[in-house]
Amino acid sequence: MTLEFDDHTAVRAVSDTSYAAEVDPGWVVGGGVNGGYLLALIGTALRETFPKKPDPLAVSAHYLSAATPGPATVVVDVRREGGSVGTASAELRQGEETRIAALATYGDLERLGDDVRTTAEEPVLPPPDECVANTFAPKEILELAPMMGRFDMRFHPDHVGWAVGQPSGRGEIAAWFRLTDGREPDPASLLMVVDALPPVTFDLGMMGWAPTLELTAHVRARPAPGWLKVRHATRNLAGGMFEEDCEVWDSAGRLVAQSRQLARQPRPVS
Amino acid sequence: MTLEFDDHTAVRAVSDTSYAAEVDPGWVVGGGVNGGYLLALIGTALRETFPKKPDPLAVSAHYLSAATPGPATVVVDVRREGGSVGTASAELRQGEETRIAALATYGDLERLGDDVRTTAEEPVLPPPDECVANTFAPKEILELAPMMGRFDMRFHPDHVGWAVGQPSGRGEIAAWFRLTDGREPDPASLLMVVDALPPVTFDLGMMGWAPTLELTAHVRARPAPGWLKVRHATRNLAGGMFEEDCEVWDSAGRLVAQSRQLARQPRPVS
Repeated sequence: MTLEFDDHTAVRAVSDTSYAAEVDPGWVVGGGVNGGYLLALIGTALRETFPKKPDPLAVSAHYLSAATPGPATVVVDVRREGGSVGTASAELRQGEETRIAALATYGDLERLGDDVRTTAEEPVLPPPDECVANTFAPKEILELAPMMGRFDMRFHPDHVGWAVGQPSGRGEIAAWFRLTDGREPDPASLLMVVDALPPVTFDLGMMGWAPTLELTAHVRARPAPGWLKVRHATRNLAGGMFEEDCEVWDSAGRLVAQSRQLARQPRPVS
Repeated sequence: MTLEFDDHTAVRAVSDTSYAAEVDPGWVVGGGVNGGYLLALIGTALRETFPKKPDPLAVSAHYLSAATPGPATVVVDVRREGGSVGTASAELRQGEETRIAALATYGDLERLGDDVRTTAEEPVLPPPDECVANTFAPKEILELAPMMGRFDMRFHPDHVGWAVGQPSGRGEIAAWFRLTDGREPDPASLLMVVDALPPVTFDLGMMGWAPTLELTAHVRARPAPGWLKVRHATRNLAGGMFEEDCEVWDSAGRLVAQSRQLARQPRPVS
């Protein structure tokens, strides 16, 4: 049986450089389709391009136009392949429109060294049962964001004040995360996880969709099975844009992915 | 009179999509040419590509092979141009080799809103005269890194223990920064500034060149004239790679650029 996430991110090679895909309506959020899901879709084509280098080490994506559910094509162009890493450009297109232009460097995370020196600290979260589940979101939110049905998210109780009109103003949202289909995390799904939480600007009291201009993800290790911890933070909202940093930690307490995106400040929703 | 930095980053259009450039030997560092300088060179071609959108908002670069001083070509391919931003792919090539593949979104920083909400804190540095100047670097270092002659850098005294075999182990290096040619900072030069300091791994006691796999820079505002403050930090060295975050602050105390790179852990130098 194919799990939902794998079904939704499947691609079919139509040539050496072109893959047919189907953007699933289950990932709609606000006025568009979730950018992390689209990145994971591109990732499936890249994994097929580099069969001996299956893991995304660094993926940079520039979001050019809003994707819609329906057919799409991923066009891949290998720019260099060496012994340990390969780099390709990849574009997600629908009709004549390019939705996303990406550059990706793939490798094999199993072949990397295991020297770890980290000062990064795992987010502190109460146990999942003591956090606020996304299933408690108001019905209007769930209707605007079918994507929420894909996730089991448990938010830190101190980070969901925005849901009741009391954002903390700190610019931080952390949550437990897993897919509702039971699929365990892997490097491919982490490309989606880094853009799964609500925009961190919710915690600044700015409700509304925050369109991504650019997102770069670094996958640093293969995640252990189980719950992930995901933390979004922003430090600088200026000039109508903000950066959103995301960290993903696995159940073994390892920092498995880091990402940063530059997004447009949400416009007030009326 | 053309200032040195502008001379070294000049390009000449040879077609609508192709620019001739000259990689200057003055930017050699260790076994290669500084990646920030090469990014600024690509930036010059992009600025000519988008004359009404002169500023790099987000530039993502994947480093494919080591550049050498001498002739190079920048090939630009506009992927989308809208009213406020334009996105292009750009490659720096030498002969048959692609050195850098980049994606860049350009716009006009003057046209952005001026709402600023930041929790980011400016690096605290003693006055430049009380910091450690790069001109005090050992002669062997200066010979290995002609690039150092381009910069007037004043390091935080607590962040240069590595120069005398006593790295702090914190993974942080901050310094005052300006170009020795007197050129004031602008969004174009910030693409170079984000990769100008020594690798932050020096502060972890790992001397040696740290090859960049991927670097993404966000330019957040046009810098005021005068000294910049530049801060490099890393939180996670794992699997033979580390992320290096860079912040650049201008003399008006504004966060003008943020970048993150994924680099290979330096090999011990014998």
